[in-house]
Amino acid sequence: MKKFINAVDSLLDESILGFAKAHADIIQLQSEPTFVRRKEPTRNGKVVLISGGGSGHEPLHTGFVGQGMLDAACPGQIFTSPTPDQMLAAAQAVENGGGVLFIVKNYAGDVMNFEIAGEMLECNNASVLIDDDVSLPKDHSTGRRGVAGTLIVEKIVGAAAENGADLATCKSLGDKVNQATASMGVALSSCTVPALGKPTFDLAADEMEMGVGIHGERGRETMKLASATEIVEHIAQQIDDELKPQQGQQALLHVNGFGGTPLLELHLLYDLAAQYWEKRGINICRSLVGNYTTSLDMAGASITLTLLDEEMLKLWDAPVNTASLRWGC
Amino acid sequence: MKKFINAVDSLLDESILGFAKAHADIIQLQSEPTFVRRKEPTRNGKVVLISGGGSGHEPLHTGFVGQGMLDAACPGQIFTSPTPDQMLAAAQAVENGGGVLFIVKNYAGDVMNFEIAGEMLECNNASVLIDDDVSLPKDHSTGRRGVAGTLIVEKIVGAAAENGADLATCKSLGDKVNQATASMGVALSSCTVPALGKPTFDLAADEMEMGVGIHGERGRETMKLASATEIVEHIAQQIDDELKPQQGQQALLHVNGFGGTPLLELHLLYDLAAQYWEKRGINICRSLVGNYTTSLDMAGASITLTLLDEEMLKLWDAPVNTASLRWGC
Repeated sequence: MKKFINAVDSLLDESILGFAKAHADIIQLQSEPTFVRRKEPTRNGKVVLISGGGSGHEPLHTGFVGQGMLDAACPGQIFTSPTPDQMLAAAQAVENGGGVLFIVKNYAGDVMNFEIAGEMLECNNASVLIDDDVSLPKDHSTGRRGVAGTLIVEKIVGAAAENGADLATCKSLGDKVNQATASMGVALSSCTVPALGKPTFDLAADEMEMGVGIHGERGRETMKLASATEIVEHIAQQIDDELKPQQGQQALLHVNGFGGTPLLELHLLYDLAAQYWEKRGINICRSLVGNYTTSLDMAGASITLTLLDEEMLKLWDAPVNTASLRWGC
Repeated sequence: MKKFINAVDSLLDESILGFAKAHADIIQLQSEPTFVRRKEPTRNGKVVLISGGGSGHEPLHTGFVGQGMLDAACPGQIFTSPTPDQMLAAAQAVENGGGVLFIVKNYAGDVMNFEIAGEMLECNNASVLIDDDVSLPKDHSTGRRGVAGTLIVEKIVGAAAENGADLATCKSLGDKVNQATASMGVALSSCTVPALGKPTFDLAADEMEMGVGIHGERGRETMKLASATEIVEHIAQQIDDELKPQQGQQALLHVNGFGGTPLLELHLLYDLAAQYWEKRGINICRSLVGNYTTSLDMAGASITLTLLDEEMLKLWDAPVNTASLRWGC
């Protein structure tokens, strides 16, 4: 295993110290238990948005803490849910009379721990469950996974909370954005989890893993490596089956890299995906291309489409000032 | 070779189409010859900044075209200089009475082609040569290479040009920032150039390439893989030998990923590098961490330090609105 680390056990602590140092103008790091919060105190009565999940997906979620997006984020161990005491401490630190909205990716550990934190928390709270990954069937035993669509919910609901929307409104908006969002990923390599020290699965030189998640698990199907156009069409069809976009519909297209794939290839995928939907009369009016929801060093990418109404579009465009998403501020 | 492409020959064209589509609010793409320019016309009398170089280093340089930074960028073939006609066309398209400043990384092809373009151009023009890579000795036959420090020159001089500085002032500021900047990189893997289809060099599982460039070439030395702390100290000492920073000096610390290394590791390197200089009394007052000057899919990172005076600090902080660097706008 080749990584820039001192020791497997200290990797996360050293990395988050660097993150906090590099972005001390926006966030502050709390320890015992660990969470990242906005530097500025919460405005009285504002709904606070808190997310979290296993580490290894950076910049998700810590890179999205700041004005117009999350109020706090709780990083777990690599690919492991954060604990309820992290979520509770984060909520208590930033809540200021408006209640707490947890943004939770649909994984058993995350769901259970955020639920426990919500029960322990002595203020109004609610959760939005993200399950945008269409590579699993809708009736899968544990439901569909939350993947790259998560940041889109965080951005849009974060803007609404900033504008003064109440908890019930933020919760129903979050559910609506999640419903309007579908994602699917493909890997060209596995990732290497530091504690394991070797790739979590093997792919032959002419194979790819279609419908892959973000935790180094196998995907839906191992397929022969195909052209970028064939890959995009395969994924886009799954997304269309789910969202059934109508002609003239406005949409946000997000091409996300998993960590080991360069921007050159992500932009190529973006072009092909935009072409696919434009040919079908969809108005791709907003874009996001880059490494945002990663899986350590995995080579691969996911495509996410969010169908936008006018309210969602306006909230997407609203100012945001975080380590990894920034405009209008 | 596993990449998201349709064909080696069409990769660059398809990728830049995607880039232009995804950032149509900021830039426009011109073809025959290819260059990227700001969407808005140049303000009368403003010095225009133009850079360019081989592709494969994205987001450098196209991702830095926009308000407060470059006016145009010319992408060449992968790891190959753009041609003088690209540079000439870009200059003629954006020049508006203030003259042209070329920002040129020190590689023989780039230097020659920008020189030809400058001679053909019928308006005031000058060049800043970037040679921040301290892994080669100062008296190396072709001089030192221009690497990740390039974007720092582009940002600071871009802000000065936006503020109305004239060509001679921009040129001397660019030279000053280049002098105040030193970089060195280390690779854990080679990159794979699409036309070659295999890694350009091999490293054993316990080896790293120290003092590596950004074109898939071998570095200064193949070394045994070391801890992150040892790697950072090795690089930081080379940078100190060059810049000789004084106690209390303000500096910008830039940890750059080469394309295949996740943010988790880059933040860890940032923490260690910040500690190194803070212990020596250097005031690391600005940071930049991420994949900015890449070498396709190479796993690795570089560390850049720029010593800042008050003017440079103010210009670094000035508003910028490009695809890959954005604040204050």
